[in-house]
Amino acid sequence: MKLTVKPLGIESGGKFIVVIDDYVANALGTHSLDRVDLELRGKHVLAIINVARGFQKGVIGIYEEVRKALEVHEGDEINVKLAERPKSLGYIREKVAGRKLDRSEIKTIVADVVERRLSDVEVAAFVTALEIYGICTDEAESLTRAMIETGKKLNFKKKPILDKHSIGGVPGDKTTMLVVPVIAAAGFTIPKTSSRSITSPAGTADRVEPLCPVELSINEIYDVVEKTNGCMVWGGTLDLAPADDLFIAVENPLSIDPLLLPSILSKKKAAGSQYIVIDIPTGRGAKIETQTEVYHLANDFIELGRRLGLHIECASTFGGQPIGYAVGPSLEAREALETIMGDGAEDLRNKAITLAGILFQMVGKNDGEQVAKEIFRSKKAEKKLREIIEAQGGDPEVMPNDIEIGDKVFDFHSEKEGRVLWITNNAVVQIAKEAGAPKDKGAGVLLKAKMGNQVKKGQVLFQIYTENNSKLESAISLSERLNPYAVGHKLEENMLIEKISARKLHERRYLLER
Amino acid sequence: MKLTVKPLGIESGGKFIVVIDDYVANALGTHSLDRVDLELRGKHVLAIINVARGFQKGVIGIYEEVRKALEVHEGDEINVKLAERPKSLGYIREKVAGRKLDRSEIKTIVADVVERRLSDVEVAAFVTALEIYGICTDEAESLTRAMIETGKKLNFKKKPILDKHSIGGVPGDKTTMLVVPVIAAAGFTIPKTSSRSITSPAGTADRVEPLCPVELSINEIYDVVEKTNGCMVWGGTLDLAPADDLFIAVENPLSIDPLLLPSILSKKKAAGSQYIVIDIPTGRGAKIETQTEVYHLANDFIELGRRLGLHIECASTFGGQPIGYAVGPSLEAREALETIMGDGAEDLRNKAITLAGILFQMVGKNDGEQVAKEIFRSKKAEKKLREIIEAQGGDPEVMPNDIEIGDKVFDFHSEKEGRVLWITNNAVVQIAKEAGAPKDKGAGVLLKAKMGNQVKKGQVLFQIYTENNSKLESAISLSERLNPYAVGHKLEENMLIEKISARKLHERRYLLER
Repeated sequence: MKLTVKPLGIESGGKFIVVIDDYVANALGTHSLDRVDLELRGKHVLAIINVARGFQKGVIGIYEEVRKALEVHEGDEINVKLAERPKSLGYIREKVAGRKLDRSEIKTIVADVVERRLSDVEVAAFVTALEIYGICTDEAESLTRAMIETGKKLNFKKKPILDKHSIGGVPGDKTTMLVVPVIAAAGFTIPKTSSRSITSPAGTADRVEPLCPVELSINEIYDVVEKTNGCMVWGGTLDLAPADDLFIAVENPLSIDPLLLPSILSKKKAAGSQYIVIDIPTGRGAKIETQTEVYHLANDFIELGRRLGLHIECASTFGGQPIGYAVGPSLEAREALETIMGDGAEDLRNKAITLAGILFQMVGKNDGEQVAKEIFRSKKAEKKLREIIEAQGGDPEVMPNDIEIGDKVFDFHSEKEGRVLWITNNAVVQIAKEAGAPKDKGAGVLLKAKMGNQVKKGQVLFQIYTENNSKLESAISLSERLNPYAVGHKLEENMLIEKISARKLHERRYLLER
Repeated sequence: MKLTVKPLGIESGGKFIVVIDDYVANALGTHSLDRVDLELRGKHVLAIINVARGFQKGVIGIYEEVRKALEVHEGDEINVKLAERPKSLGYIREKVAGRKLDRSEIKTIVADVVERRLSDVEVAAFVTALEIYGICTDEAESLTRAMIETGKKLNFKKKPILDKHSIGGVPGDKTTMLVVPVIAAAGFTIPKTSSRSITSPAGTADRVEPLCPVELSINEIYDVVEKTNGCMVWGGTLDLAPADDLFIAVENPLSIDPLLLPSILSKKKAAGSQYIVIDIPTGRGAKIETQTEVYHLANDFIELGRRLGLHIECASTFGGQPIGYAVGPSLEAREALETIMGDGAEDLRNKAITLAGILFQMVGKNDGEQVAKEIFRSKKAEKKLREIIEAQGGDPEVMPNDIEIGDKVFDFHSEKEGRVLWITNNAVVQIAKEAGAPKDKGAGVLLKAKMGNQVKKGQVLFQIYTENNSKLESAISLSERLNPYAVGHKLEENMLIEKISARKLHERRYLLER
């Protein structure tokens, strides 16, 4: 059937979508979400149909992606016919029916996802089926390889390539900003790509940004790493494992992440990493709450890594309260800088030394932790951080106080004397987000006491920073409702963790970071 | 945040969707598929976000549905803010995690589906989870009630209301066109609403249409039923259980139908039906192939019906070959008319008498089948069919030959002498569709021999009817490839049903009809 092109002038977000009237759809024998083959001058594009009632007859509305791919103009006549359903759709149906898919089937699905041949509905069904059945190691390997093969790769000359990854789930975790300089200062290559926040008050890319630009091109990254051995950049534009971003777009609204391991390891493998330490923050209110879960997850990482030729060790670290004191991009950038300069947060420094130490051991330095400590003590870590900041385009002389933070501040006081028995991660996250993080870089929460600290009645437990008064107000009222601190004389006198009066939806505030 | 309205001038197919730039999305803290609250002059609309790169900053593109609901014009400034995720999304996540949902949770989901508060991705995850876990009778009941409560209801005065439904899956099944007149002729009310074809060569609404209009308003239907006791109309515009159509839109591309029973029974209950016979065509190549499946399905129908106050009986009928000889809208309309007039197809007449007999028994006539036979014999059935045709706006004097069929005809000859051992339903379906059915009303397949018939070498096994030559060509080549007939002297000499040389995707050509 010949139809006249009408460009809609908007993008669909990467998908090839066309709009036709329901009468035309009926004549073509198609329905919404069916695929049509579009042809003009021998060029073919496969697009997914949206049927709109009352759209002009004889006309096909095309989104920008289709217009560009087919090189058509308003008024062109194109040939439109019902296309066959892609093979991958059959495999997705088999997965929904519970069958284990083999490597070539999974590759077909991933390739069709990347080439936008599948609709959101179809990708959602696939991801949901993976979530419900779980994926076995064979499938995880196939998915990882397919995600690597359908994306770009980085190639750093100076081997070995070291890397560090946290599955996230604990607020204020700016450890990467200390580990990268320590490793790079020892002469090892550590080109760290990070994500921005999806549901948290700050991702590592957000935390680094107050110090220097993080959106670098591939060639700029090569330059920075050539000069400094390391980098701390946003991985979003590098097109490593692009399938992952398309899966995440479906996983996020559903708060499920069956593709977590393939997602992380495909990006690591595509970035050329060889030795990777994976941080699994563990504890009440963290993403992973029990040691049993840690072992399962660590085993999966190690085994999948082995199959891909990646050396992986995992660290279960204490994630029962925020790391350091600062939560929110600029507050965290300040704290990372202070800590690498010698003051700052002890838990943060300890965690960075431990993780760097594990990496050093993996590449043959048996006294890894001592090496890391010495690099800290001698200020080589600080010097390296400043080199990286400079190489990425920031000010190498930056001091913590140079980093602007919100000027509207509220002090939250303790109602009684005692010890801090615990701090609820999720409450801190919600308050920091209410204050404006991560969008308002200067917004967030600054803790003034950590677990085990003795506090007096009226002493400040934490501060809220915001860039405007209305956000301050709503963050204050949220913190009064959520009160993240439990203060008492000893654990024994405060046995209640939480009262559950009605069935409660267990909201997963975090997805594992990728 | 204030954004300027730009109407996109196209419909999204019922969903409330807006388009914003990725920069604006970031500032709002939203991602694609998040929901935003739109406000103008105190009026609120909840819409789902599509993020498009490079869309104008400060501008929000709105689809027609949003424009109408919010009553805005180009250039209006509206307030846009991130909306809370609907509660139903939490329940969907719990269903994905495998929890049984209760009635109020399911009602919340269905209401949010009907009010377009959930994205395709979210509905797809829900439907996929239902497919994988299956639904228990409690959930089926909750779903059915929720689907009824969120739609319109019909109310016919003359009780009891009888009904007949087939789950479909066998080509040429025009039984409804005979059952309705028989029941109505006996003085019982049978207001039959049917679907159009989704994947088959004809749905009942398509088959009736060559005789009379089927798209009637609710008031017209009341008039027809008042006059004749019966009707045969398309149910698509009646807004009975509208949630169902939205679920179907997601189920079709995935070829799954976990909501089959709620779908069918919600429409029956909303249409006021009290006594229903459900036809389950059974046999090789039908939707239901084994007697075990029949019992499970029948039990589910009967139990769910009981809970809803519906009297249901099921009939497992022979579905191993097409019903009658004709496949395709006009060919089937001819055959239905011929058969009710006394000639035509014996299996069709037998099936109609059996199903009508069951319905008569259900309302107290113990000799139901005799009653049905007598109504046929006395031509009361034919008279009633003509009354219904007239009441719906068709020609009551219509004769079979008045119905136009395709004038391009091809005879498919038997290559040998013998008996017809079997006919492959799916091959007949594919050939009829290739010929143009259901869109070309006159297209289809006319069988010239049925299972068990003796045929000579060179005798015509079936004919293909089309409205143009190119479709005839492709239907011929498809029938040569698929050859739907197995001819042999006896079953014993032809034991091979199908050779499977490579792993085969089991394509489900049919979804159960609703």
